[in-house]
Amino acid sequence: MFVTANEHAGKAVGEVHRNLYGLTDLRFVKAPEEFESLSVLDCVFLALPHGQALEIAPRLPTGVKVVDLSGDFRLNDADEFREHYGREHTAVELQREFVYGLTEFNREEVKNARLVSNPGCFATATLLGLGPLAASGALKGRVVVDAKTGSSGSGAKPAANTHHPQRSNSFYAYKPFTHQHLPEIEQALRGVGAGGRWSSELVFMTHSLPVSRGIFASIYAELNEELTAEQLKEMYADFYRGSFFVRLVSGSPDINWVKMTNFCDIGFAARGRQVAVFSALDNLVKGASGQAVQNMNLMFGLEERTGLLLVGGNP
Amino acid sequence: MFVTANEHAGKAVGEVHRNLYGLTDLRFVKAPEEFESLSVLDCVFLALPHGQALEIAPRLPTGVKVVDLSGDFRLNDADEFREHYGREHTAVELQREFVYGLTEFNREEVKNARLVSNPGCFATATLLGLGPLAASGALKGRVVVDAKTGSSGSGAKPAANTHHPQRSNSFYAYKPFTHQHLPEIEQALRGVGAGGRWSSELVFMTHSLPVSRGIFASIYAELNEELTAEQLKEMYADFYRGSFFVRLVSGSPDINWVKMTNFCDIGFAARGRQVAVFSALDNLVKGASGQAVQNMNLMFGLEERTGLLLVGGNP
Amino acid sequence: MFVTANEHAGKAVGEVHRNLYGLTDLRFVKAPEEFESLSVLDCVFLALPHGQALEIAPRLPTGVKVVDLSGDFRLNDADEFREHYGREHTAVELQREFVYGLTEFNREEVKNARLVSNPGCFATATLLGLGPLAASGALKGRVVVDAKTGSSGSGAKPAANTHHPQRSNSFYAYKPFTHQHLPEIEQALRGVGAGGRWSSELVFMTHSLPVSRGIFASIYAELNEELTAEQLKEMYADFYRGSFFVRLVSGSPDINWVKMTNFCDIGFAARGRQVAVFSALDNLVKGASGQAVQNMNLMFGLEERTGLLLVGGNP
Amino acid sequence: MFVTANEHAGKAVGEVHRNLYGLTDLRFVKAPEEFESLSVLDCVFLALPHGQALEIAPRLPTGVKVVDLSGDFRLNDADEFREHYGREHTAVELQREFVYGLTEFNREEVKNARLVSNPGCFATATLLGLGPLAASGALKGRVVVDAKTGSSGSGAKPAANTHHPQRSNSFYAYKPFTHQHLPEIEQALRGVGAGGRWSSELVFMTHSLPVSRGIFASIYAELNEELTAEQLKEMYADFYRGSFFVRLVSGSPDINWVKMTNFCDIGFAARGRQVAVFSALDNLVKGASGQAVQNMNLMFGLEERTGLLLVGGNP
Repeated sequence: MFVTANEHAGKAVGEVHRNLYGLTDLRFVKAPEEFESLSVLDCVFLALPHGQALEIAPRLPTGVKVVDLSGDFRLNDADEFREHYGREHTAVELQREFVYGLTEFNREEVKNARLVSNPGCFATATLLGLGPLAASGALKGRVVVDAKTGSSGSGAKPAANTHHPQRSNSFYAYKPFTHQHLPEIEQALRGVGAGGRWSSELVFMTHSLPVSRGIFASIYAELNEELTAEQLKEMYADFYRGSFFVRLVSGSPDINWVKMTNFCDIGFAARGRQVAVFSALDNLVKGASGQAVQNMNLMFGLEERTGLLLVGGNP
Repeated sequence: MFVTANEHAGKAVGEVHRNLYGLTDLRFVKAPEEFESLSVLDCVFLALPHGQALEIAPRLPTGVKVVDLSGDFRLNDADEFREHYGREHTAVELQREFVYGLTEFNREEVKNARLVSNPGCFATATLLGLGPLAASGALKGRVVVDAKTGSSGSGAKPAANTHHPQRSNSFYAYKPFTHQHLPEIEQALRGVGAGGRWSSELVFMTHSLPVSRGIFASIYAELNEELTAEQLKEMYADFYRGSFFVRLVSGSPDINWVKMTNFCDIGFAARGRQVAVFSALDNLVKGASGQAVQNMNLMFGLEERTGLLLVGGNP
Repeated sequence: MFVTANEHAGKAVGEVHRNLYGLTDLRFVKAPEEFESLSVLDCVFLALPHGQALEIAPRLPTGVKVVDLSGDFRLNDADEFREHYGREHTAVELQREFVYGLTEFNREEVKNARLVSNPGCFATATLLGLGPLAASGALKGRVVVDAKTGSSGSGAKPAANTHHPQRSNSFYAYKPFTHQHLPEIEQALRGVGAGGRWSSELVFMTHSLPVSRGIFASIYAELNEELTAEQLKEMYADFYRGSFFVRLVSGSPDINWVKMTNFCDIGFAARGRQVAVFSALDNLVKGASGQAVQNMNLMFGLEERTGLLLVGGNP
Repeated sequence: MFVTANEHAGKAVGEVHRNLYGLTDLRFVKAPEEFESLSVLDCVFLALPHGQALEIAPRLPTGVKVVDLSGDFRLNDADEFREHYGREHTAVELQREFVYGLTEFNREEVKNARLVSNPGCFATATLLGLGPLAASGALKGRVVVDAKTGSSGSGAKPAANTHHPQRSNSFYAYKPFTHQHLPEIEQALRGVGAGGRWSSELVFMTHSLPVSRGIFASIYAELNEELTAEQLKEMYADFYRGSFFVRLVSGSPDINWVKMTNFCDIGFAARGRQVAVFSALDNLVKGASGQAVQNMNLMFGLEERTGLLLVGGNP
């Protein structure tokens, strides 16, 4: 087992991520230059800036399973990829082998996958909150998703939008209508459940919360017929039967109850044919690393929860 | 001039609100028992729990001007009042004399008013953000308003939802579809501009932000025809010409730039016929006391900005 | 196994502490009225307002081991108890059987104890940071401890000092020179190591941080002779050999790296004979429940870390 | 009047500092290349990275008054300057003309000054809190100053220590014993009051608070004789008579009550001969720009409070 980070090569993991001090003897190493020797590995997690997995994945030995956390292999359509990521997709063939690792939608496919593309954090929150309705064919008119994220979603590198004097106590919208998670959301909605029932217009808006972790999506939909919040909850309970990490709650979820965990909490409200679904998760766990481990567990025949029974709360 | 607060009677204002220490010699006094002697006053601000102004306003000498910050005199319809405030409206006659003090909508009426009902904080943010579109007749289909507020909106009394260990780092929805500001918003939208052009369904949802101050409303609307963000901005500039406290910004507003001020910042985004309008204000200033002073200025023929040229920022 | 909470009796634990939803089927029950039937239990944790354990502990069956998290059984001196807790100590005999459960100071005594009194959160941070110096006899002159705590230290009940609009972004001192943890700190310092070497005056000051969790103590001491930060670290490494939950760090600790964990991180600085020791922990874990479990583990011959290998970080 | 900022040259001030949008038509211009034409100015504020005022101040026309907010002209001793700022002092002659602009210590000197060196933020908080005791000659033994600052003290440029995911909810010490404000504090203490009474060792420690603004200094001193908190307050009231911006409070100050203002709030606690003095201010106002304006007011014979009657509070 090894973990790479060129900028930290040689340093102990616990020295860089000081919460891990004393919990691991791992040290960061440089990324390997040639990849043949990696055939001894069972699994590789790629957590790289967008574009780098495109270069690396095709060079990995074919016996190695891969979970890629970037956006490089999420989109089936090369044109959409070019439009949203600003580069050519140079591994179109390999992309077709990737399973979209939203575990709760694609559990069986993930079990049999060699290559898994881990969903984006906003996509996970939106899809888990909207999927059962999209699969039901009960939607009418456009769906509005008002999504909010904590600052850790912006990555580890300091920038103007994560400068503490600016970000603390702030709230604002960003990338209106154009967030790069939008196409993977629409692609997944078209395929959810039996597939083919999603035909709504999706209005997707991202905002910045003054917290470190957490995504909260407020999803507004109009239905063909009236449903109560309780009926919605039952519909979702059916859909998520056997999905430990989706918790259906009474009232609204709160990002504080899912932080540091792999849970996605979902709540409901309804007034006539207008419904609201709220989903909350930790962008770094269910929205990234936790879901990656969840997928790995399935890919290797392990119990899905292995290593993921984490207790959250507001620290 | 005097300021009442029964629980603090006898204490210096600067002892209770310690930011004011050294800036005023005022002391809190008990609320008067009989009101005839108040005829020496020019103006009374009522900032009381809902229901109390209902009792007091009818007893005030008729020569005194009143700005009421509660919800008691905002709704023209006594049935709606009963439904949302859970009590009978016991001063229906007097209510008809009240002008709804959203200054930017009703500036001329406020100038001539003796009685002004100051809008709710959510209502102010929503109406300033949605009013020009509602007046334009350009809307099609339902409008979704996803509104978020800081904790000071819950009042000065400690409660479970403002308990710091719970509230800090949190985000959640509350009072889904049922917030008591909804009827005053719909009432004002029906009357804005020439009036009568608003006929959309309004989906209104309130959320709690882990900050002390600030309201941010994300307003999602569909138009009859495509408009760019720039064209929207021009439409709003026309509507708000002469309204110093509405600032039209490029991109998204941020609650940090309006805190401690009487400004409401409004920004725009558009994709085809889908548009988003963002409005941000300080719930305690433009959403309450600042707007009350703004209205008082007009009621007494003073310059609208008197006492309100405040510089905000992120403290 | 059962968990009591009179105000929540009948409710699921996961309904009250929503981070635990889905992780346990436990429900809160009423506290038992008679205690003889409790003899089937191995261990009781008492986490009650100060004064209640005084009533309950003497009535528990003598075969049951007890960890009390309140201040009721921490002080050996009944006069000091009266002075700081404002009530008579009504179980002086039983108190003598209690071991002070600062695990790292009293590991062997805890292993053999039936009754353990879990230290206060401030006391834990201060004692772990100051103990090795106190035991060394190297101190000269008074010691100043400037301690800061998050809001969760004030308990679950909303109050003025935890009202979010007041507490967020705030910083202030409270209970100057008089915090009730002071006597247990002084008592433990007199006994640490070989005992009897502590004779310094202790200046102890508590402050409120605008975070939910975390205690940070800055300890200022003057030594008989110069020591570098590195030499201090070595002295502490000797003292804490075998103590997994004390991590000696380079530079300053940060409350973010210990939150949600049972670690206490300690760092050092020195200039001539002036030294500073910094200690950081999570007041709810190492400062309360985590240390209680750590003590229970020892009392039952379990590995000290059982159930406590928690990964922290800033959520 | 003009304001320079090379990186923002051409932009409106209200576009860069969006809280000022609508309040000023000023635009940033490039810094002038030659300075002779500046003789038309009355006053120049220099707010530059350390080292740049050293180059500029000697080139300014001698008729122009100057307030420098950097550390370049605060230290009388060129050796200390070299040690703490890592560069030669290249304007030693000019430095002798500078008055140290801690207004409350040097009001008369400032009135007559052409050149004023504005104190550092930590220095202001520490000196205002410690000055009266230092002047009294009542101190015995070392003084410990435990100071904490918000993130805006680190400047406008994003950096690791102001990266929001790291800084939010954090607390840690930094630059232990070595902060560059230490020498200006000691220099000012030696001269305060009649001068010459300060002979204590000063232990000075800086910490990072997870707020944007605010400095809080906890000052621990031992006295020659016992004084109550009330007696301390009287001593300070004498010292600060006529100093509007120092507010002596009961109990502890709170950074929330001074934010966005030019006030420094000071509180007291005592136990026998041990005393604690707490001072709180806004590092960007009384700790920087506000004090600069306060000094300018005096330098031009204006009322000291002109432009500085700001109402603070927790936004």
